[in-house]
Amino acid sequence: MARPIAVVLLSGGMDSCVTAAIAAQDYVLALLHANYGQRTEQRELQAFHDIADHYSVPTELRLVLNQHHLAEIGGSALTDPSIAVLATDPVSTGIPATYVPFRNANLLAAAASWAEVLEAGAIFAGAVEEDSSGYPDCRRTFYDAFEAAIEAGTLPETHIRVITPVIGLRKAVIIQLGTELRAPLHLTWSCYLNQDLPCGRCDSCTHRAKGFKEVGIKDPLANRSN
Amino acid sequence: MARPIAVVLLSGGMDSCVTAAIAAQDYVLALLHANYGQRTEQRELQAFHDIADHYSVPTELRLVLNQHHLAEIGGSALTDPSIAVLATDPVSTGIPATYVPFRNANLLAAAASWAEVLEAGAIFAGAVEEDSSGYPDCRRTFYDAFEAAIEAGTLPETHIRVITPVIGLRKAVIIQLGTELRAPLHLTWSCYLNQDLPCGRCDSCTHRAKGFKEVGIKDPLANRSN
Repeated sequence: MARPIAVVLLSGGMDSCVTAAIAAQDYVLALLHANYGQRTEQRELQAFHDIADHYSVPTELRLVLNQHHLAEIGGSALTDPSIAVLATDPVSTGIPATYVPFRNANLLAAAASWAEVLEAGAIFAGAVEEDSSGYPDCRRTFYDAFEAAIEAGTLPETHIRVITPVIGLRKAVIIQLGTELRAPLHLTWSCYLNQDLPCGRCDSCTHRAKGFKEVGIKDPLANRSN
Repeated sequence: MARPIAVVLLSGGMDSCVTAAIAAQDYVLALLHANYGQRTEQRELQAFHDIADHYSVPTELRLVLNQHHLAEIGGSALTDPSIAVLATDPVSTGIPATYVPFRNANLLAAAASWAEVLEAGAIFAGAVEEDSSGYPDCRRTFYDAFEAAIEAGTLPETHIRVITPVIGLRKAVIIQLGTELRAPLHLTWSCYLNQDLPCGRCDSCTHRAKGFKEVGIKDPLANRSN
């Protein structure tokens, strides 16, 4: 029997790269990436294709979404140059200014449309509950609810699981897992601010550095840059 | 107290036009439209702006999405010229070839992102269960599930209802309701195939003609065309 297909949301960061490595053990990969007017759009797209090349994913199983309406809608430091990336919204519940409202639902909806056409059995998302600093669309309760929406809104014969294999893991554990699975962490990009050298100060850089430090290995990306 | 905002999905067809008319009774309208590579994309966009003009909706409360990934993904006669609009998929469960896989979830996700930024209290969608010939993403069970996903995946202070005011109505009743609310039905576009004159043969034209016949009034669009 042919291996089933899984649609994997691949931002180009470490979490989604390790998620792809996990999915690759049991599924044929169909990789989905979104350009949504984020500051590091070009660099993330490059990471996406580098990782896709690493896994020899053919062109017809790569899908790059234009989700620039998320930048047009605004409300996030990731897409609005007038909001500081390093700020935390003081009036809210401590959720960082980098939260893009309901972004992951936009990606999951597209993933589900594609999965239904490909007759894929699963969607993999690399969301991480703890390290994502409380983004509401990074919690498993959200993914459970979205899985139910997919079940309700697709054809009777369509059944798509939404799998978030690293959602409960700490960054250090994700790095360790990625290393064991030979995930190409050297091809990933995490920084929210820069496209040439990681800034080292944003939430995403900080979590990444802390993770590598805890594992006790050098970040292969830092090796490349220095 | 200022009137609350509602994001209304406005395709430019009759159902969404009447839905906008219903929403306009209690809410400030924020109108959302999607270009997704459908055959009649330009004509539907014109209908969207005509209806938005009718309700004096300012530019900043109109959002046109690029959802061309739905055409790229394929799987529907609405976006794939090689699939006939008038065919019904014989191997499936009688769902027409015009079904665009999980399309409405893509639109609802964008609507929810926008609604969260606008602090809107509701999203209105003009889905119709009976006339939509069994599209799975036109059933109230799907909208309930999606509303739960929005609740789970947005900020704690965000609460957005998904309202489908015409979902249980027959086309004739929708037309009657639209007439009572002075909805600009003469500005709508329903045909799946043509952009100049309605084809009169596709599912959407057939449902529209049947509805007007049952109400016993002339389609104002037919008056304009003939």
